[in-house]
Amino acid sequence: GIILLGFEGSSRLLFRQLFEKESATYTYLLADLAHPEKPAVLVDPVDKTVDRDLSLIKDLGLKLIYAMNTHVHADHVTGTGLIKGKIPGVKSIISKASNSKADVFVEAGDKIYFGDLFLEVRSTPGHTVGCVTYVTGDGPDQPCPRMAFTGDALLIRGCGRTDFQGGSSHQLYKSVHSQIFTLPKDTLVYPAHDYRGFTVSTVGEEMLCNPRLTKDEESFKAIMENLNLPYPKMIDVAVPANMVCGLQDLIGRQTEPV
Amino acid sequence: GIILLGFEGSSRLLFRQLFEKESATYTYLLADLAHPEKPAVLVDPVDKTVDRDLSLIKDLGLKLIYAMNTHVHADHVTGTGLIKGKIPGVKSIISKASNSKADVFVEAGDKIYFGDLFLEVRSTPGHTVGCVTYVTGDGPDQPCPRMAFTGDALLIRGCGRTDFQGGSSHQLYKSVHSQIFTLPKDTLVYPAHDYRGFTVSTVGEEMLCNPRLTKDEESFKAIMENLNLPYPKMIDVAVPANMVCGLQDLIGRQTEPV
Ligand SMILES: [Fe+2]
Ligand SMILES: [Fe+2]
Repeated sequence: GIILLGFEGSSRLLFRQLFEKESATYTYLLADLAHPEKPAVLVDPVDKTVDRDLSLIKDLGLKLIYAMNTHVHADHVTGTGLIKGKIPGVKSIISKASNSKADVFVEAGDKIYFGDLFLEVRSTPGHTVGCVTYVTGDGPDQPCPRMAFTGDALLIRGCGRTDFQGGSSHQLYKSVHSQIFTLPKDTLVYPAHDYRGFTVSTVGEEMLCNPRLTKDEESFKAIMENLNLPYPKMIDVAVPANMVCGLQDLIGRQTEPV
Repeated sequence: GIILLGFEGSSRLLFRQLFEKESATYTYLLADLAHPEKPAVLVDPVDKTVDRDLSLIKDLGLKLIYAMNTHVHADHVTGTGLIKGKIPGVKSIISKASNSKADVFVEAGDKIYFGDLFLEVRSTPGHTVGCVTYVTGDGPDQPCPRMAFTGDALLIRGCGRTDFQGGSSHQLYKSVHSQIFTLPKDTLVYPAHDYRGFTVSTVGEEMLCNPRLTKDEESFKAIMENLNLPYPKMIDVAVPANMVCGLQDLIGRQTEPV
């Protein structure tokens, strides 16, 4: 059989980072290899790369149980709806605060188990009202260093915009400082996007090198208010679809004869 | 100071994967954190992303000593020439068999040290005559699992084309089977490119799932002979520049007044 690779400090975690180039989105696959069923989760899957992700999951002999989002994305349609159509039994997860549809709603402090590994939910609003960060567990059998899937709250040397979807630069500043920068400095930062080809950072590195979040709150707010970003081209399609966990497309298809 | 992250099984290796989207090229940064100078190497840097790479190296407090190529690339201009211009003292490395310019020429069995860590050179011709794979060392203080930087010899679920630059499907088949598939199955495969958003694989995974290299040699040759790929658009610019380690551009600039 295939030899699967564990993550540092934990031979049981399989971890893969996957990239969707049009929206520059990272999808993350995590699985518990020590559990007989090899249960797996996908964080922030994209509709366009669902087939790639599911074929990898099949190659690795994993059992996908959750397809989860860090927030209601405005730049791509989530893959959760398509995945649920292709693998019955997979449950979608999003934060309760997002006010969106999903099978499971989570809030700060919740633990999402896959086998004996888990992701802890941290509330990190500011880019959107319902943004959460998923952090690998703290404990002897959990991956070390920890890994934080920050969505668009904290990006590598950047952060998500705060000018729509209930965004607030005050809230984002508070979220990152109280919920992410308080993690151990060696915690790996895995964001939902990178536009320059970086794949990972650490909490310690962002605390020292992030050009926005190393500033005081007033300077941060001034930066965020003067970004002059264009209206996101996908937002009017992506947000309504993502509010129903990407199921719109699927519902449309199911009504047509095959 | 910043907390730098080590790699699994070796707290001394810092490792970063970096992506250049136009040519879908991966550049790899490795450094020995336990050495007082934090010596670092870049594998397959791209001219367009040199500033990004050097700013990361500066943020992390590393000392770049080598800029090395797996082969003479046909799809992008190497960053080695620009890097040498920006950081005097950095040495470029390429295989002797590539017949290109560089400061240091390597061949099968050579060890390239950065601090107390090293990369071992394996000869993997077939995509080009001078292709090599750089593999992290085997030993108690070296990273575990091992990591293979395969260039275009072995890609994730694919391989480099064999229809130019002295390519040979017979040679490529032999190279991958004798030099890469003989590594421990948990060896991480880090290719020079990925066009579908995969970031890493393992030797064991490719031995079971690679749609080309799991075939017998005759079937492999038939696949490679029938790819009908277009003439690479960058080849007439990239190959001459890369034969002189990307220095053409630099030489051109140095003759102009600053
Ligand atoms: Fe977002
Ligand atoms: Fe190549």
